[in-house]
This record gives sequence, structure tokens and C-alpha cells, in this order.
Amino acid sequence: MFFEFIEEVIMNDLDVFLSRRSIRRYKQESIEPDVMIQLVKAGMAAPSAFNQQPWEFVIVHETKLLEKIAKLHPFASMARYAAGFIIVCGLPKKDTLLLDMWPQDCAAVTENVLLAAHKIGLGAVWIGIYPNEKHMSIFKKVCHIPKEVIPFSGVCFGIPDTEKPPADRFDESRIHWNSWE
Amino acid sequence: MFFEFIEEVIMNDLDVFLSRRSIRRYKQESIEPDVMIQLVKAGMAAPSAFNQQPWEFVIVHETKLLEKIAKLHPFASMARYAAGFIIVCGLPKKDTLLLDMWPQDCAAVTENVLLAAHKIGLGAVWIGIYPNEKHMSIFKKVCHIPKEVIPFSGVCFGIPDTEKPPADRFDESRIHWNSWE
Repeated sequence: MFFEFIEEVIMNDLDVFLSRRSIRRYKQESIEPDVMIQLVKAGMAAPSAFNQQPWEFVIVHETKLLEKIAKLHPFASMARYAAGFIIVCGLPKKDTLLLDMWPQDCAAVTENVLLAAHKIGLGAVWIGIYPNEKHMSIFKKVCHIPKEVIPFSGVCFGIPDTEKPPADRFDESRIHWNSWE
Repeated sequence: MFFEFIEEVIMNDLDVFLSRRSIRRYKQESIEPDVMIQLVKAGMAAPSAFNQQPWEFVIVHETKLLEKIAKLHPFASMARYAAGFIIVCGLPKKDTLLLDMWPQDCAAVTENVLLAAHKIGLGAVWIGIYPNEKHMSIFKKVCHIPKEVIPFSGVCFGIPDTEKPPADRFDESRIHWNSWE
């Protein structure tokens, strides 16, 4: 069976998923824009429905703008000390097949960015924006995002100034085999 | 700068994201249920809005059911040859804060499962289900999923019988710095 070959390495392989935590405390150090591009690159590698890739990105690293985000979004106060804040934007108008799957495509992108940040040693946290109208309007204003583009989510990141042990969210009772009951 | 320390390893670190492709051809080999549980474990490690964890999982591996899925879902014909099919289910009733973010939480979970499968050497593909009513009803029927639970997405997987080079989806023109224009 396949499992015999991978039993020993499987735990290491899945470490990137199992050890990731939301990190909200950062050292006051900047990060090279090239590194930020790598995070976005990992994001763009996500799958999307019919490969429509309904996304764009705003990478915020100017202190003034980070402070604005921290002040305006009720759950983004950590942005004040962050090295950067990547806004994943959705493009519903790319959804010509009317699948209405662009939010899940953008969520897959966000998860990739978040995991990529963790994988290269940064600390990061997912900031929810869509579908909250008030929160979307904050980013539209601060970053001059056009009307037809949706600020979907944010990934706030920096050099971590805190360590968190893995959170065990595994709950076997939520697994059903072949049929619900 | 931080980048100097990681420049050499960054490409290796991001390989799991950049090399993942949708794999739809599998060898006729079964996979140990314990491995399937590990994929779900990676899924459950995803973040969720206010840590509501609005998800459950159905792991399908019975040939009869895989064939039913292949027959009924227009984009899941590869399930016939798959070792398994993990249905990520959403629990809107866990959303007591009315954030309406459960679909993005479930998408993050799905992306984790998909990446985890790739990371341990399996081939996998994301099958969209929600919000298509017809596709949701297929899984409700086949797996007896209760009315209040939403079959959100599927991850079809097996031992890969095909190799695909990385798809370069990177498009720098989609990156905006600090402000849209």
C-alpha cells in the first residue's frame, strides 16, 4: 500500500499546514519587495474555476497607508507594525460563465499567500474583508480600488515577534466515511 | 534585509505551491484510509473567521459511490478511477455572527487538502460544487448529507498516472503597489 512508503515523511510534509498560526506581532523590520512578490506568486498559483484567475493584488508597504488600514479596519490594528499588507482583490466581471465561484478562488489564493508567508519564516494573519460592505469600502478608499474590483481579503505580515505552538484543530468526529451516517 | 537570508531557499520553499497542478488521471491503486485522514487533518488546520471552523468532511472511497459521483457530476468523470473523493461540507448554522464567510473558510480548507495531497505525492483536482444547486443536490443524495449542511467542494485524488510541468500563472501586471494607480 502507498502508505507504507510515506508513513515516515508524511508528518514532515504536512508541517507547513499544521504549524501555521495567525501571527499578529511583528518586529520593526522591513521586507524586500521581491519577497512580497514571491508571496503573491504563490497566490497566483492557486487553482480557479475554469482557470478564470479572477484576481488582482495590491501590496501595501508604505507606513502611512499601513497606519490608515490599522486605524480604519476594526480587526487590522496589527497592520501598524506590519512590514506589508497584501490585499487580494476579486474580479467578478471575469466570471463570464456566471459560476459565482470567484470568492472561493480568491480564498484559495489567500490561503496560498498565508501558507507561503509561514513557509518562508514570516508571521502572517488573514484579515477578512468581503462580503462586509463597510470593510470593503475602507480598502477601496485607502488604495483607490476601482468600483468593479472587490477588496476580498488581506494578508498582514512581517518578521514574527512571537512564537506560537501548533494549534491542533483536528476533530475526527467531523469525518464521515462514504455516507453521512 | 531579510531577503538576503532566504534568497537561496525561497524557490524551494514555494515549490509546493508553484508545482501543484490539477491531476485527473490516476493509477488503479488504493490508498490507505489513514492517509486520507492526514489530508483532512491538513484541511482542518486552515484558519476560519473567528475560528468558527464551519466544516465537516465526507471521505468517499467505495468504488460504487465514486462511480456514482463520476456519472452524476458533469466535471467529475475522473472520480471513476480515483482512490478517493473528499467532500468539504459547509455549516452555515455555525455562522452565529452572520459574517457569511463560511464559503471562504471552506475554500481555504479545500486548498489545504489539495496542497497536502500534492505535497505527499498524490495527484488531485478541486471539483467545484457550491453554489450550483444541481451539483450540491448530487452529493446530498449520493452521501445522504443533511439539509442544513452544504456540500461545498470536492477533492478527487489518487496515485498520479500523469506528470505535468508547473503552470506559470504569474502575471506581474496584476500587482499594484500601495495604491491601484
